[in-house]
Amino acid sequence: MHAHSIAMLGTGLIADFYARSLHGQRGADRIRVAYSRSEERGQAFSDRWGIPSHTISMQAAIEHPDADVVVVALPNHLHEEAVAAAAQAGKAVLCTKPLGRTAAEAKRMLAAVERAGVFAGYLEDLCYTPKTLKAVRSVRDGAIGDVTWVRSREAHPGPHSAWFWDGRLTGGGSIIDLGCHCIEIIRNFAGKANRPVEVLCTTATLVHPIEDEDNAIALIRFESGAIGQFEVSWTFRGGMDLRDEVAGTHGTIWLNHFLRTGFEMFTAGGEKGYVAEKAETAAGWLFPVGDEVAELGYVDMFTDMFSSLDEGRTPQETFYDGYVVNSVMDACYRSAREKAWVPVELDWRGGTTPRIVAKPTFYDGQIVIKRELLPDGRDKLILKDPETGDLSDRVITPGA
Amino acid sequence: MHAHSIAMLGTGLIADFYARSLHGQRGADRIRVAYSRSEERGQAFSDRWGIPSHTISMQAAIEHPDADVVVVALPNHLHEEAVAAAAQAGKAVLCTKPLGRTAAEAKRMLAAVERAGVFAGYLEDLCYTPKTLKAVRSVRDGAIGDVTWVRSREAHPGPHSAWFWDGRLTGGGSIIDLGCHCIEIIRNFAGKANRPVEVLCTTATLVHPIEDEDNAIALIRFESGAIGQFEVSWTFRGGMDLRDEVAGTHGTIWLNHFLRTGFEMFTAGGEKGYVAEKAETAAGWLFPVGDEVAELGYVDMFTDMFSSLDEGRTPQETFYDGYVVNSVMDACYRSAREKAWVPVELDWRGGTTPRIVAKPTFYDGQIVIKRELLPDGRDKLILKDPETGDLSDRVITPGA
Amino acid sequence: MHAHSIAMLGTGLIADFYARSLHGQRGADRIRVAYSRSEERGQAFSDRWGIPSHTISMQAAIEHPDADVVVVALPNHLHEEAVAAAAQAGKAVLCTKPLGRTAAEAKRMLAAVERAGVFAGYLEDLCYTPKTLKAVRSVRDGAIGDVTWVRSREAHPGPHSAWFWDGRLTGGGSIIDLGCHCIEIIRNFAGKANRPVEVLCTTATLVHPIEDEDNAIALIRFESGAIGQFEVSWTFRGGMDLRDEVAGTHGTIWLNHFLRTGFEMFTAGGEKGYVAEKAETAAGWLFPVGDEVAELGYVDMFTDMFSSLDEGRTPQETFYDGYVVNSVMDACYRSAREKAWVPVELDWRGGTTPRIVAKPTFYDGQIVIKRELLPDGRDKLILKDPETGDLSDRVITPGA
Amino acid sequence: MHAHSIAMLGTGLIADFYARSLHGQRGADRIRVAYSRSEERGQAFSDRWGIPSHTISMQAAIEHPDADVVVVALPNHLHEEAVAAAAQAGKAVLCTKPLGRTAAEAKRMLAAVERAGVFAGYLEDLCYTPKTLKAVRSVRDGAIGDVTWVRSREAHPGPHSAWFWDGRLTGGGSIIDLGCHCIEIIRNFAGKANRPVEVLCTTATLVHPIEDEDNAIALIRFESGAIGQFEVSWTFRGGMDLRDEVAGTHGTIWLNHFLRTGFEMFTAGGEKGYVAEKAETAAGWLFPVGDEVAELGYVDMFTDMFSSLDEGRTPQETFYDGYVVNSVMDACYRSAREKAWVPVELDWRGGTTPRIVAKPTFYDGQIVIKRELLPDGRDKLILKDPETGDLSDRVITPGA
Repeated sequence: MHAHSIAMLGTGLIADFYARSLHGQRGADRIRVAYSRSEERGQAFSDRWGIPSHTISMQAAIEHPDADVVVVALPNHLHEEAVAAAAQAGKAVLCTKPLGRTAAEAKRMLAAVERAGVFAGYLEDLCYTPKTLKAVRSVRDGAIGDVTWVRSREAHPGPHSAWFWDGRLTGGGSIIDLGCHCIEIIRNFAGKANRPVEVLCTTATLVHPIEDEDNAIALIRFESGAIGQFEVSWTFRGGMDLRDEVAGTHGTIWLNHFLRTGFEMFTAGGEKGYVAEKAETAAGWLFPVGDEVAELGYVDMFTDMFSSLDEGRTPQETFYDGYVVNSVMDACYRSAREKAWVPVELDWRGGTTPRIVAKPTFYDGQIVIKRELLPDGRDKLILKDPETGDLSDRVITPGA
Repeated sequence: MHAHSIAMLGTGLIADFYARSLHGQRGADRIRVAYSRSEERGQAFSDRWGIPSHTISMQAAIEHPDADVVVVALPNHLHEEAVAAAAQAGKAVLCTKPLGRTAAEAKRMLAAVERAGVFAGYLEDLCYTPKTLKAVRSVRDGAIGDVTWVRSREAHPGPHSAWFWDGRLTGGGSIIDLGCHCIEIIRNFAGKANRPVEVLCTTATLVHPIEDEDNAIALIRFESGAIGQFEVSWTFRGGMDLRDEVAGTHGTIWLNHFLRTGFEMFTAGGEKGYVAEKAETAAGWLFPVGDEVAELGYVDMFTDMFSSLDEGRTPQETFYDGYVVNSVMDACYRSAREKAWVPVELDWRGGTTPRIVAKPTFYDGQIVIKRELLPDGRDKLILKDPETGDLSDRVITPGA
Repeated sequence: MHAHSIAMLGTGLIADFYARSLHGQRGADRIRVAYSRSEERGQAFSDRWGIPSHTISMQAAIEHPDADVVVVALPNHLHEEAVAAAAQAGKAVLCTKPLGRTAAEAKRMLAAVERAGVFAGYLEDLCYTPKTLKAVRSVRDGAIGDVTWVRSREAHPGPHSAWFWDGRLTGGGSIIDLGCHCIEIIRNFAGKANRPVEVLCTTATLVHPIEDEDNAIALIRFESGAIGQFEVSWTFRGGMDLRDEVAGTHGTIWLNHFLRTGFEMFTAGGEKGYVAEKAETAAGWLFPVGDEVAELGYVDMFTDMFSSLDEGRTPQETFYDGYVVNSVMDACYRSAREKAWVPVELDWRGGTTPRIVAKPTFYDGQIVIKRELLPDGRDKLILKDPETGDLSDRVITPGA
Repeated sequence: MHAHSIAMLGTGLIADFYARSLHGQRGADRIRVAYSRSEERGQAFSDRWGIPSHTISMQAAIEHPDADVVVVALPNHLHEEAVAAAAQAGKAVLCTKPLGRTAAEAKRMLAAVERAGVFAGYLEDLCYTPKTLKAVRSVRDGAIGDVTWVRSREAHPGPHSAWFWDGRLTGGGSIIDLGCHCIEIIRNFAGKANRPVEVLCTTATLVHPIEDEDNAIALIRFESGAIGQFEVSWTFRGGMDLRDEVAGTHGTIWLNHFLRTGFEMFTAGGEKGYVAEKAETAAGWLFPVGDEVAELGYVDMFTDMFSSLDEGRTPQETFYDGYVVNSVMDACYRSAREKAWVPVELDWRGGTTPRIVAKPTFYDGQIVIKRELLPDGRDKLILKDPETGDLSDRVITPGA
C-alpha cells in the first residue's frame, strides 16, 4: 500500500464528506492541500481537517508538488476545467458525480484523461455502499437468477446549497442531482455489459418555485429486456429516502440505506436546547444512521480508488461509467420533453448481454405455466395447450 | 341493521375469501344459495360454509326467492352476463374486480344497473384494508398536504388458476389482474374528484410462456398534476408484495399490507411433515399475516356494502369507479402498444380538482426556495432573485 | 348462530372498545342495556352506540329481561360483586381483565360461576389478536419445536383514567394493569397444560409520583423448563410497545402488535388544526394501526365467546385462566417484596407437560454438540468425549 | 498519526475479524508477526493477510523488535499469561473479550499492565458499533432524559469452535461468551460512573448436551436505580439476534445490529451450487449485513485504540472496564446458584451517579400524575390528593 497525498478542489458539503472518509478511522492517505475560491472557507476547511496548506488558486493546488492525486469536489459547471487541468498536470484525478452536465461534456473529460494517460475515477459513492457491494456480488453469483427489474429511489426535501438549484450551473434539477446515483446503481445490478437501449421519462415541478424538475420518474430498457426504474424527488418529506429493489427470475433483493435501518430513537424533545441531528424534526421518532460516510459508500469508494491506483487496475467506477450516466440523463431530459421513449445515444464499449432466459418446460406435451406444491404433497400444474392456447389445471403426484 | 341473504355466483378462490368474510366472526348476513357450473364444486363449497342450497343454474341462484343480494365471484368473462341477469331480477348486485374486461363492457354493466335502479357495489377489497381506510382519512384531513405522487405495487409469482392466464377470458395479463387494484387505490389517495388525464405504460412478458404481460409499469397523470404510479408483476419471488407509498407537500405515508407487518417466524422445518402456510418456502424465515380477510379489506368492504344498502347511501366503491378503472386500464394497454402517453377516454362524472398548490414566499424581495433550521437556532434561506434567476444562500436570525 | 343481547356494565374506555367490536362491522349481537354509575355517562354511551336503554342500577341492568349475557367492563374492585350478581341471575357472564385483584378474589369468582352453572368467559383480548392466534397454532403444529422462552412486553406512558393509578382499587400498578396480558400470552405459547412453578420479579417506581410500581420485570419458570419473561412499564416513551418473542428448539417467532406494523406516516404538522391520532406527538413520524379493535383481538375474542356459548363449548379464555393469571401476579408481588424466587400457589387443574427434549446424538462414540454445513459441502462437527469431557472439532463428508 | 506494527497472538475466527479490520480499507497499521500454536494455521493466516512473519513461540512474537503493539486474540484461558508477557516486554497490549475468566484473573491482569505502565485496551467491539457510538452520544446529550432501563440481547445457535463449549477453558457458557458484550453495552448507556450494585440471574441448559448454561437472563441494578437486563442464548434459531433497547424518562432508543437492518434477500436457491453466506439456510429470505467488521464495531474500536495510544489518552474501553464486566459476570453465576439477588463485589473507581430524577409537579395543590392533550386542545390531568391519596381526573384549558 502506497500512502497518497491529495489536492482537494472544493471545500463544501461534499468535500467535508470526502475529508471525513479520508481522515477518519486509521487511513494512510492524507489531504495535502485544499483549494477554495474563498480564502476564509479554505482556512476553515483546513483547520477542520488538519490540512497543512490551502490556496485560492486551483492551478496551484493541482500542481502542488507533494500531491499525486487530485479530487474534484466542485459544483458541476467547474468539473471539466478542473479535470482538464489535472490531466494536463499528469496527476491521477477523481471526480465527483455527475461527471458532466451533459454527455458531450463528460465525453470531453473522458477524452482528456485518456489522452493524458492518467488514472481517473468516478466518485459514485452510492455504488459502493457495503450493502450494494455485497448485493451486487450475490446477483453476479446467481442468487436471484436473471435480473428483470431494478428500482432505485432517492428522495429528500431538496439540496442545502444555492448553486444546486440553478440549472445553468448544474445542468438540470433532481435528475442531475439524484438520478445520476440511481442510474449507476441500476447499471451495477443489471450488469455493466447490459446496454441501456432506450429511456422513458416524465418530469414535473410540483412544489418549489424553480424552473427545473423537482420530481422525475424514468424507465430504462436494457438490451437483456430488464427494466430500470428510478424515482427522484426534491419534495419528499420525512428525511432521506434511499432504497433499491431488485427483482430476478429466482429471487428478490431489497436495500434500504437510511430510514429504518436498525436505529430508532424517540425523544420528547430537548431540555437544555438539545437538537437532534436530522433536518425535518427535532423531536418525535427519529431514524439516525450510524456511520454516514461508511453507510453511504465513501469509505469503500476511496479504498477502491487508491488501491486500484496502487495495483494498476481499473476501479469499479470509471469516467466511462460517468459518461454512460450522462448519456442516460440526456435521454431522460429529451424523453420528458418529447413525452416518448427515446434511444440512449451512446458510444458503447460495454459488450452485449443476452435476453432474459425464459425457456418453457413441458408436461405431457403441454407447456407448464406454473407449478406449485399443494399441502398434501402433490403438485398443481397450470398447463397450456401449444396448439389451441387453452389453459387447464392439473394435479399430479411428484415424480409422475 | 337488516340481515341479508346472498346468492353467491362462483365457488372458487375469491368466493372462498368472500364466504370466509361473510360467515366469519359474528356476521348477520348469510349465503343462502351458491351457483357453480360444477355440481361437485357447488356441493363442496356449500358443505364448507354451511350453505343450505346450491345449483348449477345461474338464473336459478339469482332468482332464489330468499336471496336479496347477488354476489358475482366469477371469472371476468362472465361478469356482464351475471350482472345483467341480477339487474333484470331487480336484485342488489355486488361484482368482484375488475368490473369488466374493457371500459365498453364496464359501461354496459353500469348502464344495466342504473337502468334497473338496483343497488350496485364494486368489490374492490384493497381499497378497504383498515390501513388504507385510515390513511385515506388522514390525507383528506390534510395530514400530508396536497398529494403529489402515489405508488401502488402488487406483485407475486403468478395466479393460482388456469383461467387467469388466458387473456381471452380475462381481458389481459397482470394489469387486468393486479393493476385494477392499484389504480383504484391511487384514485382513493389522489382524490376521486381528480380526473385521470393521461397514461403512460410499458409492459413486458419476461418469464412466463404466455402472450399477455407478466410485468407492467404505468404512470397516470391527474388533473391536479399528481402522478400515480403502479407496478404489477406475476414474476415476483418471495411471497406477496403489496405496498403503497403516498407523497404529499407536507408529509409521506407508507403502507405495507403483507410481508413484514409484525409477524416474523423462522422454522428449521418440519418434523412430522409440517408445512408452513405460504407458497414459496416451507422453512426459513416466513412472514405470515394474522387475519387475511381482515387485512386484505374484505371485512370492511362487505360492511360498507351491506350498510350502504341498509341506509340507502352510495358505497365507497361503485360500478362507476369500476368503469373508471377499466378506462384507465384500456389506456394502459393502448399506451404500451403505442409506446407513448395516451389520453384516458372516459365519460367523466367526478368533478374537478385544482392544481397542486405551490405559492412562493418572499424574503427581502427574493423568492424563498428553501428554509431550514441550523443547529445554532438561526435559519438558512436559499433565495432566488426574481429578475436574474440567480440563487444565493443567506443565514438569518428567526423573526428577522 | 344465535344473536345475543348484552347488558354492558361500565361505559368507560374499555366499554367503548367492546362496543366498537360488537357494533362494528356486521355483527349480529347487540348491547341491549348499559349500566353506568353516572346518568350522564350512561346517556352519552347509549347515544354513541345506539343502545335502547341505560340505567344507574347495576342490578337492573343484569336482570334486564331481554339481556342474556352480562359483560363486566368495570374497574377491578367492582368485578367480584358484578360477577356474583350475574351468576345469581343465571346469566352468562364475560369479565374484563384482570379477573380479580388477587387470586383469592378470582377464586371466589370462579366458584360463583361454577356453582351457578352459568357460562363464563375471561375477556383477555391480547390472547386473541389474529397474529397471536395464528402463531399459537403454528407452535402447536410443531413449527418451532419445543418452546424454551417467551418474552411478552407491554409498555406505554401510563393509563388514561385516575382509578388505574390507585392501587387500592386495582390491586397494584403496572403488573396488575399490563402484566395480566403478558402472563396469559406467555401461557398460550408455553402451553396451558404447562404449570407455572415459580416466579422471580423485580419492581420499581422510577418516574411517576405513585406508591405502586410503574415498571416491573418478571421471570416465570414452567414445569417443562421453559422460561416466561414479561416486562411492563408505565414510563415508556414513543407510543405503545406491544411485542412478543417466542424461542423454540427449532424456530423463532416475533410478533409486533403496534408500532412498525406496516403503516408509517410523516406529517410536517397541521394546517387547520389537524391533530394526529396518537398521544405522544402530533407531527413527525407516526405509526398508526389500521383497525385497532381487530388488531388488539377484541373481534376474535367476542366471536370465540359468543360462538362457544352457542355451541356449548368452553371458550379459549376461561375464569380458571383468569384465576391462574392472578395467582402468578400474586407470586410476582411476593417475589418482588422478598427479592427471591417464590412458588406459584395455585389450585392446578391443567395437567402436566414433559421437560423440553434435548437428546444428544452421537458420532463415532462422541456426543455431537453442534453440526454445521461448511461452504464446501462438508459438515463440521463439534464433539465431546463422554468420558473426559474434552471437546474437539471434526470435519466430515456427509453420509460418512 | 503514527502507523503501528502489531504482534497478533492467535489465528482463529476472532483474529480473522481483527485482521480484516486492520488490513481492510486504507488502514496504516499492519500486522507484523502472527503467533499460532500450530505452524500450519500460522502459515495460512499469514498468507491470508499478507503478514511478513509468523511463529509458534508466543514469547518470540511478543518480543518481535518491530512490533510495538500486542493484540491478544487467544482463548480465554490464555489471556492472563499473554498479557503478563506483553506487560513484561513493555509493549502496548490490547486484549479480546472477556478480559478474564473471573474477576480475580481480570484484576491480576489489570495490576500487571498498571505495574508495567504500558498502554492497555479492552477489545469490546460491540460497544463501538457506529450505531452504539452515536446512540450513547445522544443519551449523554440528554436526548432521552435519565436512563431507566437497558435491554441488551445477544443470541445465536452456538459458537463455531470446540473450545468455546468447554467451561474449564472459558470460565462458563453463554454468559462468559455473550454476556460480557451485553454488560458493557448496558454500562455505556447507563453511564460508566453508575455503579452496578446488585445482580439477579437465572441460567438454564435447555438444548445442548453440555454442563454450562446455554441460556441466561440477568438483571443488574445500578446506583441510579436504572435496571440493566441481558438475555443471552446459544439456542436461538434464525441467525444472529443482536439488539439493544434503552428507555429513558424522555425517550427511547432501539438498536438492531444484524437481522432486518435494510438488506433483505429472497433466493429460490442455487443453481450451480450457490450457497448464501449465512448459516441457518441457503434459500428463502436472508438478511445479510453489509460490512460486518464495520457494523460490529471492529473498525471504530481499533481507531480508538491506536489513536488513543498516539495521543496519550485513555481509550473508551479499558482493562478496568474488563474487570468490572468480569465482576458482574461472577455475580451472575453466584446469583444463579443462590437463586437470589447478590451484590456485585468490586473495587469501584467509577464515581457516583444520582438517583433517577422524578420530581412531582403540582396543580391546584394536587400532585400531577399525568397530563395529556385532548383532541379539542384542552389538557386532561390525572391528580392525586397529597393528603388522602385519592385520584381524580380533571380537564383544563391550557394556560389556566
